[in-house]
Amino acid sequence: MMAPVVGAPDPSPPSGGGVIRLLDGVPAGALPLADRSIQFGDGVFRTLFIRDGGIPFWQRHMARLARDAAALGIKAPAFETWLAELREHAPANATIKLILTRGESPRGYVVPDNGLPHRITQIAPPAPVVDRRAGVRVRICETRASWQPRLAGIKHLNRLENVLARAEWRDPAIFDGLLLDRDGDVVEGTMSNVLLLEAGRLLTPALDTGGVAGVLRDVAFDAAAGLGWERGEERVDLPRLLRAERVWLCNSLTGLVPVARIEDREWPAHPADHILAERIAALAAEETLWLN
Amino acid sequence: MMAPVVGAPDPSPPSGGGVIRLLDGVPAGALPLADRSIQFGDGVFRTLFIRDGGIPFWQRHMARLARDAAALGIKAPAFETWLAELREHAPANATIKLILTRGESPRGYVVPDNGLPHRITQIAPPAPVVDRRAGVRVRICETRASWQPRLAGIKHLNRLENVLARAEWRDPAIFDGLLLDRDGDVVEGTMSNVLLLEAGRLLTPALDTGGVAGVLRDVAFDAAAGLGWERGEERVDLPRLLRAERVWLCNSLTGLVPVARIEDREWPAHPADHILAERIAALAAEETLWLN
Repeated sequence: MMAPVVGAPDPSPPSGGGVIRLLDGVPAGALPLADRSIQFGDGVFRTLFIRDGGIPFWQRHMARLARDAAALGIKAPAFETWLAELREHAPANATIKLILTRGESPRGYVVPDNGLPHRITQIAPPAPVVDRRAGVRVRICETRASWQPRLAGIKHLNRLENVLARAEWRDPAIFDGLLLDRDGDVVEGTMSNVLLLEAGRLLTPALDTGGVAGVLRDVAFDAAAGLGWERGEERVDLPRLLRAERVWLCNSLTGLVPVARIEDREWPAHPADHILAERIAALAAEETLWLN
Repeated sequence: MMAPVVGAPDPSPPSGGGVIRLLDGVPAGALPLADRSIQFGDGVFRTLFIRDGGIPFWQRHMARLARDAAALGIKAPAFETWLAELREHAPANATIKLILTRGESPRGYVVPDNGLPHRITQIAPPAPVVDRRAGVRVRICETRASWQPRLAGIKHLNRLENVLARAEWRDPAIFDGLLLDRDGDVVEGTMSNVLLLEAGRLLTPALDTGGVAGVLRDVAFDAAAGLGWERGEERVDLPRLLRAERVWLCNSLTGLVPVARIEDREWPAHPADHILAERIAALAAEETLWLN
């Protein structure tokens, strides 16, 4: 039996072409122009999905959002606040983006004392189902990842480097592009984290000076722990990545995706693909919050 | 005769407490939630002022905006478009912030082919007049400037590091805080560029890996050229800055501001303060666009 591809929503009919957007829980089209997300990218976000009425890893997403907001000094709402919005407005299958901004301020970088954060909830149809178990193609971006320890790991709204890196290619056969940092170490993909298998250990690049720590990255590590694999967060330069036994990308929407090729380096299917994906799927089943 | 403090608006009565905001030239309160400035900080901006119906260095601001937009692949509107908005809506004395976003897109980092940028124009009362000719206090921020050559010099909307650096102090006696980069070199203030006088040369930190290249920085260099001073853009580490004969900060709203103290290092008034400020004021007079 093949392991399910975690993250690929069921092929149920899409919930209509429309996107529902809520501002502070109320259907809305627009955000006040004085909001600091517009002025400074001053906020954090998460992307996740609902499948058959369940949200895999909901608690982890909320914990990360709260941690990221705290790192920027933004007061995050209670988990229940977001959940009530989704219960009221989201269909059984959807792609969700949650944005938390620092709220409005008149002018200048100074953080107002009693600012009221804004919550944006974006409910879109589920992403099309793509079976990526045979592996994907990946490129190396010219755009480098920023060095910025204060923002490292945080899923914040300053995402211009991802935009610029993603604009480097148009070939739809390329799944993602990798960003290296100033030193040539691998940081992440434009929309994914990087995992590699090296001498039986599951490794992921340390995110101490840049990059976004996604929920699936944590989940994959927990899955590996459950399998008794050794794990490590380390600096990984490009030659080391290309020597790895296996490389995967992961994010919350696509799940664990084996890499078949990076530039000219190719990898065949690996037994660990199935083992790790199955374990992640088991964790997803255990850690799903049901909306109804 | 004292040189006028360029940038400090006249002490005319403020134009009311209100802020006027325009979206694409039309008075508006809000921006569509799908706009990429909210999602990614995907846009650029400028800050300037109108004094007695004139905008100093208008052409330079527009040229920088166009150059920054081009660096991100955003199509900038004609200068005349912004100007018509200001002619219609702005009073004779005001602080202006112009934001250009990449416009709306459904989801994901991919830049849409035929996106329509949005223009946000914010017209606020003039800043209070503060005479800073005696010099200001400056601190060194813990927050470091990002290393990111692709964004260096661009006045883009990814400004979280400025927000975090500015949140490090509340003492109103401190005018600004300096950001050093990973290597300990001085990059800029949270809201200003840095100029220093060293052995008769006007220097400013090179902005090849971070920072924002403000219009007043260019103006100060042109002023120095007119005075026959040698000039240079170089890496300047903190000890070198503290050894300088004189340090100034500059931005478009405050003009040229002498630094009286950085942490424990103090500087007395310097003859160059007056000479440079006067020359900048002369350029401002030559390069003012009159709204009517």
